[in-house]
Amino acid sequence: MKDLTEHNVTEAVLSTLGAQTDPRLAELMGALVRHLHAFVRETRPTRAEWMAAIDFLTRTGQLCDDIRQEFVLLSDTLGVSILVETINQDRAAGASENSLFGPFFRPGAREVGFGGNIARTPGEAAWVEGHVRDTDGAPVAGALIEIWQTADNGQYEGQDPHQPESNLRARLRTEPDGCFAFRTIKPRPYPIPTDGPVGQMLAATGRHAMRPAHIHFVIEAPGFQRLVTALYSDGDAWLDSDAVLGVKGSLVIAFERNDREDEARRRGLPSPHWQVRHDFVLARA
Amino acid sequence: MKDLTEHNVTEAVLSTLGAQTDPRLAELMGALVRHLHAFVRETRPTRAEWMAAIDFLTRTGQLCDDIRQEFVLLSDTLGVSILVETINQDRAAGASENSLFGPFFRPGAREVGFGGNIARTPGEAAWVEGHVRDTDGAPVAGALIEIWQTADNGQYEGQDPHQPESNLRARLRTEPDGCFAFRTIKPRPYPIPTDGPVGQMLAATGRHAMRPAHIHFVIEAPGFQRLVTALYSDGDAWLDSDAVLGVKGSLVIAFERNDREDEARRRGLPSPHWQVRHDFVLARA
Repeated sequence: MKDLTEHNVTEAVLSTLGAQTDPRLAELMGALVRHLHAFVRETRPTRAEWMAAIDFLTRTGQLCDDIRQEFVLLSDTLGVSILVETINQDRAAGASENSLFGPFFRPGAREVGFGGNIARTPGEAAWVEGHVRDTDGAPVAGALIEIWQTADNGQYEGQDPHQPESNLRARLRTEPDGCFAFRTIKPRPYPIPTDGPVGQMLAATGRHAMRPAHIHFVIEAPGFQRLVTALYSDGDAWLDSDAVLGVKGSLVIAFERNDREDEARRRGLPSPHWQVRHDFVLARA
Repeated sequence: MKDLTEHNVTEAVLSTLGAQTDPRLAELMGALVRHLHAFVRETRPTRAEWMAAIDFLTRTGQLCDDIRQEFVLLSDTLGVSILVETINQDRAAGASENSLFGPFFRPGAREVGFGGNIARTPGEAAWVEGHVRDTDGAPVAGALIEIWQTADNGQYEGQDPHQPESNLRARLRTEPDGCFAFRTIKPRPYPIPTDGPVGQMLAATGRHAMRPAHIHFVIEAPGFQRLVTALYSDGDAWLDSDAVLGVKGSLVIAFERNDREDEARRRGLPSPHWQVRHDFVLARA
């Protein structure tokens, strides 16, 4: 039996990994142990500090349920989620950039037709339209678009028992010419939930919890990479300091004021209203 | 607004830490973000792999309650707990070595007198005795010793609803000459709990879950460092491959067979029985 020291304990743990371990799992576990031990050797936590870390992780897990995913928030606020997104963005030239999926997506949204209204709560009316294309500029017909966003109170439907079912989330399909459009309300900046361990971490490190206003998009079509992204409203006060670091310059779009009454009538919206035009470009799988 | 890349995202997260942050917290958070990002950049997890990690951490937290602490088990099996112990063992020459506190301590044990019996379930009878001394060899009188160990079925009282209250855990105080003694049963090797995420991790990496037989000790006395340690039974099959890497050579002791009938009568134990002699040495605070 070999006595463990600060310097040989890492090798001792790595030597326990069985030879039959899946090679990718062995790679991940080996790197995890090395980096975790390096963190401990560098920071030299006291026993009380390490127990505080255990307690933080425990409370983070215990807060999770079908709606709340505090570990995703932790990953988001520590910049790990956007790092993983960035690493996996094997992006063909010209394809749209990724953004964070986040913890607020709910599956099973209803499908709405071209120009359909996804808002069941009041707000500043907006029209969002664009095309889905491939990297050669050809339209992608029948692409499935999932959208979700906050209501005017800054909360997603899943967070807010007062919102009607299927509020501000929907599925659309692109037309034969690749275009899509929907009616909604202008999204609002909002704080990520701060009543848990992640909120305590943000407060203790002097960080705010705000995200700039945005609409989430996931776009899928056969033969193309799934695009997980979001569009951010330009001029938003939090664009430069997003609490979860999700903003990219190419995803910041203008909400323009449209005061043409004929267009408002045709769209079924009040005049004036906001409008957004943005084309998404899918990379081939 | 600066677009985040794989290479500038770490600096971007670090730059969010407020200037008023407690310096030690800033040091820990900064190092955490750097090491975590380095792990991700090195291993390049897919989105699915990262979500599997989030799910693993979530389930680990959700399994924790007053009895079960799965994050401590995770820290133990990854060798982090013993690394933290080792780093914090600011050990004067000659002082006893530390071992893991582990997740099975329960506060509020009853106090037993010199030679008292801590076992309320059957097993192979054992007598444990020794002295608590300072590093100059002088006795430490009135030191508080907390002990806990498994029953003959390999389970701690807190894990096992069939064990009577206060089974195999107790508090003792050293006599004026620094000596202590108690009656117990020989501890058994046992598996750490394998019905949770940590058990899945061990199985997936071809690791067993066994710990060699041991008795936990925490010893406290005014003016001395608190000693968290354990005594391991020599000859145990798992000494060289403890699932949580807690064994140190100086903590491996002999369970000797005592067949003197007079001693058995004096101790209130059957003959023959096991006996252990070990002296603990406390470092000054």
